[in-house]
Amino acid sequence: MPAPFAALRSRLQRLAVGRKLAAVQLLVCDVDGVLTDGGLHYDGAGQVVKRFNVRDGLAIRMLQRAGIEVALLSGGRSGAIEQRARHLHIQHCRAGVGDKLAGLQELQAEVGASAACTAFIGDDLNDLAVRPATALLVAPADAASALRRRADWVLRSPGGHGAVRELAEALLQSRGALRALHHGGWREGNG
Amino acid sequence: MPAPFAALRSRLQRLAVGRKLAAVQLLVCDVDGVLTDGGLHYDGAGQVVKRFNVRDGLAIRMLQRAGIEVALLSGGRSGAIEQRARHLHIQHCRAGVGDKLAGLQELQAEVGASAACTAFIGDDLNDLAVRPATALLVAPADAASALRRRADWVLRSPGGHGAVRELAEALLQSRGALRALHHGGWREGNG
Amino acid sequence: MPAPFAALRSRLQRLAVGRKLAAVQLLVCDVDGVLTDGGLHYDGAGQVVKRFNVRDGLAIRMLQRAGIEVALLSGGRSGAIEQRARHLHIQHCRAGVGDKLAGLQELQAEVGASAACTAFIGDDLNDLAVRPATALLVAPADAASALRRRADWVLRSPGGHGAVRELAEALLQSRGALRALHHGGWREGNG
Amino acid sequence: MPAPFAALRSRLQRLAVGRKLAAVQLLVCDVDGVLTDGGLHYDGAGQVVKRFNVRDGLAIRMLQRAGIEVALLSGGRSGAIEQRARHLHIQHCRAGVGDKLAGLQELQAEVGASAACTAFIGDDLNDLAVRPATALLVAPADAASALRRRADWVLRSPGGHGAVRELAEALLQSRGALRALHHGGWREGNG
Repeated sequence: MPAPFAALRSRLQRLAVGRKLAAVQLLVCDVDGVLTDGGLHYDGAGQVVKRFNVRDGLAIRMLQRAGIEVALLSGGRSGAIEQRARHLHIQHCRAGVGDKLAGLQELQAEVGASAACTAFIGDDLNDLAVRPATALLVAPADAASALRRRADWVLRSPGGHGAVRELAEALLQSRGALRALHHGGWREGNG
Repeated sequence: MPAPFAALRSRLQRLAVGRKLAAVQLLVCDVDGVLTDGGLHYDGAGQVVKRFNVRDGLAIRMLQRAGIEVALLSGGRSGAIEQRARHLHIQHCRAGVGDKLAGLQELQAEVGASAACTAFIGDDLNDLAVRPATALLVAPADAASALRRRADWVLRSPGGHGAVRELAEALLQSRGALRALHHGGWREGNG
Repeated sequence: MPAPFAALRSRLQRLAVGRKLAAVQLLVCDVDGVLTDGGLHYDGAGQVVKRFNVRDGLAIRMLQRAGIEVALLSGGRSGAIEQRARHLHIQHCRAGVGDKLAGLQELQAEVGASAACTAFIGDDLNDLAVRPATALLVAPADAASALRRRADWVLRSPGGHGAVRELAEALLQSRGALRALHHGGWREGNG
Repeated sequence: MPAPFAALRSRLQRLAVGRKLAAVQLLVCDVDGVLTDGGLHYDGAGQVVKRFNVRDGLAIRMLQRAGIEVALLSGGRSGAIEQRARHLHIQHCRAGVGDKLAGLQELQAEVGASAACTAFIGDDLNDLAVRPATALLVAPADAASALRRRADWVLRSPGGHGAVRELAEALLQSRGALRALHHGGWREGNG
């Protein structure tokens, strides 16, 4: 899809999901391709480094402050995920998950959140499984085409380069929390 | 070549190779510039880190599930290649190969695949040598110009940023396996 | 904002801040998203690698030679910041700072610089706090939108890809130091 | 300069330097911003990782085969430079050099090459110093503007993303060595 059409579709989709945004109490994020650009940096010993984004980090802290729980659910397995979660005070984090639907339902039970107030952001086919347990399925601009076709909202930003930030700002705006932050600023570390 | 012409040529080439895609039983991938964007990250001790792509990884798992053998054949030498192969359950992997034709023929003997059912994806001059032993020579969008001119199919995606994914989806589609995956999703780890 | 408008606005803003540039004696740089592209590379042990830019490094050395003090003020916490500061002979460097206004004022006291001769470059909401203590608030092209709206000058270059270089060349030009460097070249290491 | 004009200028400059290309016996490459994209990846212990490009590596091997000596001359200091040089069988390599003119002249004495048969590719102000000792000063597309204005040839490719490859192919073509490689391929490792 040419860029101007994709941008327009993204705006229309956001309008359509407006009411659902305000109801979200739990945001579950896939990691690779969502909080990262999908890159897996392998060294010779098999350790995998992942590139996260500082502005996504601040967005997650702002969501937490606004009372939205943020959780990570990843098919990949790497200490990097736990470390990033720890830095951002994310308490619910699952890595190496094969069946994402089961994983999501466990997270919802832990947090005490229903499907109707859960948003999920993912980038690939294995994320389609969460559909039945989420009110809002969101995809970065560069997600796999099969997921983009079935997501409620395809963002204008790609994974690792603003996708989670864009979604977080929409969630904050839906409850009037963004304006306050823009005026008052933010006086804590950004992890 | 301007981008619109390159995209059109890529579509026409794909049509032309359609029948060959359905016959592929073995996909052999060069590593640097194909599964990675060609970056070699050196630290001060000479260790080299390579950046792979999570969505290429899922594509390789889907090919394996559909009965297509995937192998790696690299002129480079790095533990990162073996590690990535291990994570993706790739059993046939050769690194530090000077003569790629000989390397490919050894892989074909191991797997028991003929040239007529072998596809190869590479990005540079040293990959031209495999021509006689492969039915289908594929190149990422950003391959060296000499290889792009002689490849059967120049993909629309660059190496490390979707090239192997694009080829894998075409292979799956050629045997009707893609539609099933898009509807059923994927419930295993993505390596 | 479409690219041509953003470029035009950037030029007009630079004209508007011209006089302030000449008065700057202290340049305080946020790190993540300013001296880097915002990427935080996590390994499995929680170590964070940051990507700096060699041409920003040479720019900082040129500012120091021209008598402008350069300091770092970061909300993030990582040994990488101190290491980069050391390589560039930056003596005033604070990491893990929550309240950036207080941090900036401490730096100004150390250096002996007033708000009127301090420029600050930052990329996100937590940088808005420094407003009262700086004559000039500058943002990279890809800063968070809330900061871009309130900055005195939004650069044409993004963080980690020329933002600090662009600002440094403007500072040098404002005091006639750039022309001399362009003719005489630079005969020291670039850190 | 808008992209189409830059591309046209690059083509015209290449025509203008055609004769000089054929005379080159020694190619001296700056490292950061030329063989890399200028990124300096710092870990918490002060180690710096640099990202080289596999296709530049093959280009350097092809130059060596064609009888052109390749040397590295860097203002930066990092074991990564020596390691990359070793992998590519580059015997003349100097890092941490402040005065690049003196460094270049030492390299020329070692190799036994005159200024008239030396080409230099660099990206920043500290590379201007080599002007008197080189017949051909080349710059990547994203070099510092002061260097671009004074280079004999500004390439169409940026540093770390094809600049050295573009220059190498022009050098090989100038002596008829490229066509043979394109037909015969390359049967050695690509480092």
